[in-house]
Amino acid sequence: MIAILKSGVTDQQIENLCSWLKKQQLDVHISRGQYTTVLGLIGDTSRVDTSLLESLDIVQSVTRISEPFKSANRKFHPADTQVCVNDRVKIGGGTFHIIAGPCSVESQEQILCVAKAVQASGATLLRGGAFKPRTSPYDFQGLGTDGLALLLHAKQETGMPIVTEIMNINLLDAFENVDVIQVGARNMQNFEMLKALGHTKKPILLKRGLANTLKELLMSAEYIMAGGNENIILCERGIRTFEPYTRNTLDLSAVPMLKELTHLPVVVDPSHATGMSRLVKPMAMAAAAAGADGLMIEVHNDPARALCDGPQSLTPEQFDDVARAVRRIREAMA
Amino acid sequence: MIAILKSGVTDQQIENLCSWLKKQQLDVHISRGQYTTVLGLIGDTSRVDTSLLESLDIVQSVTRISEPFKSANRKFHPADTQVCVNDRVKIGGGTFHIIAGPCSVESQEQILCVAKAVQASGATLLRGGAFKPRTSPYDFQGLGTDGLALLLHAKQETGMPIVTEIMNINLLDAFENVDVIQVGARNMQNFEMLKALGHTKKPILLKRGLANTLKELLMSAEYIMAGGNENIILCERGIRTFEPYTRNTLDLSAVPMLKELTHLPVVVDPSHATGMSRLVKPMAMAAAAAGADGLMIEVHNDPARALCDGPQSLTPEQFDDVARAVRRIREAMA
Amino acid sequence: MIAILKSGVTDQQIENLCSWLKKQQLDVHISRGQYTTVLGLIGDTSRVDTSLLESLDIVQSVTRISEPFKSANRKFHPADTQVCVNDRVKIGGGTFHIIAGPCSVESQEQILCVAKAVQASGATLLRGGAFKPRTSPYDFQGLGTDGLALLLHAKQETGMPIVTEIMNINLLDAFENVDVIQVGARNMQNFEMLKALGHTKKPILLKRGLANTLKELLMSAEYIMAGGNENIILCERGIRTFEPYTRNTLDLSAVPMLKELTHLPVVVDPSHATGMSRLVKPMAMAAAAAGADGLMIEVHNDPARALCDGPQSLTPEQFDDVARAVRRIREAMA
Amino acid sequence: MIAILKSGVTDQQIENLCSWLKKQQLDVHISRGQYTTVLGLIGDTSRVDTSLLESLDIVQSVTRISEPFKSANRKFHPADTQVCVNDRVKIGGGTFHIIAGPCSVESQEQILCVAKAVQASGATLLRGGAFKPRTSPYDFQGLGTDGLALLLHAKQETGMPIVTEIMNINLLDAFENVDVIQVGARNMQNFEMLKALGHTKKPILLKRGLANTLKELLMSAEYIMAGGNENIILCERGIRTFEPYTRNTLDLSAVPMLKELTHLPVVVDPSHATGMSRLVKPMAMAAAAAGADGLMIEVHNDPARALCDGPQSLTPEQFDDVARAVRRIREAMA
Repeated sequence: MIAILKSGVTDQQIENLCSWLKKQQLDVHISRGQYTTVLGLIGDTSRVDTSLLESLDIVQSVTRISEPFKSANRKFHPADTQVCVNDRVKIGGGTFHIIAGPCSVESQEQILCVAKAVQASGATLLRGGAFKPRTSPYDFQGLGTDGLALLLHAKQETGMPIVTEIMNINLLDAFENVDVIQVGARNMQNFEMLKALGHTKKPILLKRGLANTLKELLMSAEYIMAGGNENIILCERGIRTFEPYTRNTLDLSAVPMLKELTHLPVVVDPSHATGMSRLVKPMAMAAAAAGADGLMIEVHNDPARALCDGPQSLTPEQFDDVARAVRRIREAMA
Repeated sequence: MIAILKSGVTDQQIENLCSWLKKQQLDVHISRGQYTTVLGLIGDTSRVDTSLLESLDIVQSVTRISEPFKSANRKFHPADTQVCVNDRVKIGGGTFHIIAGPCSVESQEQILCVAKAVQASGATLLRGGAFKPRTSPYDFQGLGTDGLALLLHAKQETGMPIVTEIMNINLLDAFENVDVIQVGARNMQNFEMLKALGHTKKPILLKRGLANTLKELLMSAEYIMAGGNENIILCERGIRTFEPYTRNTLDLSAVPMLKELTHLPVVVDPSHATGMSRLVKPMAMAAAAAGADGLMIEVHNDPARALCDGPQSLTPEQFDDVARAVRRIREAMA
Repeated sequence: MIAILKSGVTDQQIENLCSWLKKQQLDVHISRGQYTTVLGLIGDTSRVDTSLLESLDIVQSVTRISEPFKSANRKFHPADTQVCVNDRVKIGGGTFHIIAGPCSVESQEQILCVAKAVQASGATLLRGGAFKPRTSPYDFQGLGTDGLALLLHAKQETGMPIVTEIMNINLLDAFENVDVIQVGARNMQNFEMLKALGHTKKPILLKRGLANTLKELLMSAEYIMAGGNENIILCERGIRTFEPYTRNTLDLSAVPMLKELTHLPVVVDPSHATGMSRLVKPMAMAAAAAGADGLMIEVHNDPARALCDGPQSLTPEQFDDVARAVRRIREAMA
Repeated sequence: MIAILKSGVTDQQIENLCSWLKKQQLDVHISRGQYTTVLGLIGDTSRVDTSLLESLDIVQSVTRISEPFKSANRKFHPADTQVCVNDRVKIGGGTFHIIAGPCSVESQEQILCVAKAVQASGATLLRGGAFKPRTSPYDFQGLGTDGLALLLHAKQETGMPIVTEIMNINLLDAFENVDVIQVGARNMQNFEMLKALGHTKKPILLKRGLANTLKELLMSAEYIMAGGNENIILCERGIRTFEPYTRNTLDLSAVPMLKELTHLPVVVDPSHATGMSRLVKPMAMAAAAAGADGLMIEVHNDPARALCDGPQSLTPEQFDDVARAVRRIREAMA
């Protein structure tokens, strides 16, 4: 970390600052120029509060040389992390997995039908929403714990590990047999939830918030990792921009950028990002080509009747076509 | 609500759709054109799931004529809501209140000193963070319940009602003597928290999320109101844009726009929006001129040593100058 | 186009509006509901000024059913347009071309060296900047007409058609032997330039503005087409968002979305979008997988010494690797 | 300017870089730390191409200490610039002027009627569009030179200096008697136009682009100033964000921020920013309170029939009310 001091700062002020910094267990290297004094701070700067340092009267600006995330940082952990969901499903480190299923779990028939169809097409994890974050309190909020039970039944029938979203950390016990707990975009900075999940050993699928930077996404991963849980799968699902044709703008450059910054696996959700089922295939192929470790795709046995997010769901037949196209892309990258 | 059907839709399909809509307790008025059939839906359309309707094969597009928020809608409640914090402090309906205090509560001496200073300058509510949402798990997270105790002590000493942020709904009991509970920008769509606060009678200061639309802000207010708590104060605190000079972009047009859409009071936080203490005065004046019902301003007795958000805090002397300037603006508007 | 009228509008007002609309050569279909009257406007609604219509006292809202672009609209021209650059190079309609070359033309040696290298790796068009749009008046502005001459010499030596940016329509004559004229992102809504280019027969590579919607991009294409020039290649090159790690956010969902909306070919520029040479390969592959008709990639014989935009340029060796990877993706899509 | 070098850089590499920098007429101050070498560059760094420097293999990052704009920079020109439009109208330096008039000039009757009305209410400059930038080629493009003639006639009749937009630099001669030439938001980075205007002595009203940063706005001013024309009035007119209720988001914090960064006057256009006439009054008042040097407001004698931008225009009566309210705000600030 480099702190550039304002011109006209006195020796006494510099000395005071340095002694304060040293108390924070940092080594300080001072270089005095004709116009500017520059401090190089060496040590665990991820624990330095940049905004506090910048607020000091004598500081002109602060530049981080190392990133503020530490456990998630590839610099300190060069090898890819592989998140083990079960003996067969390991995400990251060169594998490629497709998570598929309906937006909301609606009935036993529905979830089983979709699960078997996507499994036959190559999906290795089953997704389904039991608790749904909805902008309006008047919209369908999911089947709740009944939905969880239906998912667990589908897991038993198919052997597929399940991925589902948590919205209330008080219900964590009900997620005991859930294989991957999803933190939705709106809860990416629900720090209390992140801390609580850090004390579990569950794989966490952490979705990027609609208006969150990659650095913020990694800092949220850091919250979970700081608690001791390093089983994190990052998920790009589109960011909010000014473009109205698509619901959100899928930021695929986030994939190689994240793979450079962190050792954690990165999957892409093209369904929520675009909000349109007919854009899912090209965006799924593009995500695979960009180097994603997997995909998360909405599939419904009857999209026209889906209780929510219908326009972005594929039929099982469409999903099969997408899965084949994605496999061909993956083969071309081998 | 107007649903425009695709061309080539059969009479049978239209009939099926209409009978489904009528089951949702909507009246349907059909008008058939040469190329297009338009359905007018009449009734409580706030409960209609637009995305579901749009997902239907035969529907081209859906246009809401009335807004999806109902309890918060000025159309159904033309008079301004006045949120009564205590006998003397009522927010909305023509009053103007300044909420002031430090970003974080740090010590008894600090909070008392700031409280007395801002009270002398005209602030009527005391703010202070006990639980702090920080992007990094390594940054200072607030004094927690100890911070709450210090705030309550300052309330007792000064008589000022206090405003402080909740981050974990399980700690709601600890907020029993807090006068206004703040929901921070990052929790604006923490729907479980909103539902829980809807079951209290506490005044809620609901901050707009960094990338949330006004409609989403009002839908979040609607979550609280749907539970029975109508004591909501909305707060504009800056949105995320591409401009890097200011931390966020304060959206002051949100003030008159919200006042048109809703009967709830609207306050503005110029400190967080700009992230720079020297922009607080002009933005506080502008917010008052734009018609805000109040301001929320960070004040610190020693900004250079504040444990967080130092650069945006004013000294008590600067706050006094701001409060005077704002009063002159308010008088010019009388 | 559907106009929804306000409640309480009189028959006389509706009649006046309808007679005014009919004068604009539109057929009007009126449907009166209990609460709302809806007008269906039929005819060439691309010539209707929506904002004017919405400004009328009696109009509640206006919804376009057909898009405001007409010549560019795939609805009226279902087959892909193929832009013929020369006998061998035709862009669109199932072909795939890579445009490569340096950001700025610097010297005869440089442009020839790069041209031959990228041609050997499979690029079919040569790009190079002679006139450079720079944010600062103090930055290098390109070699101007000397740069054009160097490009034309490289064209003669290699047979590659050339693509270069125009910044001043008064210099159009100097572009006589340029094969594809590029309109840069900052000039996408320089309507006077678009009109002038509409009166040529030159292929135009039209880049999306940093903060322009797809509809605006298509309306800018429409300006050129309205003048009689239908040889337009659209180019996605990244949009401005809040994410700072990448210079811009490459919006790859724009590719399938544009292919649905228009018959014009769409190419992608991953170099400018990301601003980082190490992201060019994954984004080039992703763009091909998303269905782009071609790519535009910056290549420099010595990126470390490039006079501008160095960080985003590839070496010829890196470009060769990218071109091979993209070819494998294209083969996987066949 | 501070350049931080990568670790592991050799003495020879540092020496090479320093000798190259010295050739650019910069003094270089080297400070070697244990891990990092930092170069302090002293001299006219506004002429240093940051992206070139950052592209060098041995450079980790570059931080500007001084801003890249020079002529516009308040540091080098602390006193407010006052742009003299005529003997009576001087913008900046403590004055406050309102520019008012119709979006488009439509007829002699219209422009005269509006001009006299706004003059009576206190406006000191008359605006009116003769050349209109429209997203669609099918929308009304303005009366062109006929519109200019009508404006000049209104100037003669009322004595009000006129402000109107230029879209084609080839028509500069026709603007000879125009008092203030407006550069619209879409042409803010039309660098060829900026250069041409730099060779005139005309006051230029330079509007901020929809997605341009304040730094880019100032660099565009710098283009004009570099040509010798320092008569520039900056104009904030709203930026593009995700919020759909208002057409754009008026960034009022830009006012004090610009006033700190530059000595040039800053006016605000609340009409285009919000796109709604009923938001013009609160935003005009807020802009004055934020410290703007003036306002630009659309007024139409019959908004319901305006040929473009009707919904954002005020009637003369409404304008009179706005002007009074703004005057009271200005008085409260004295």
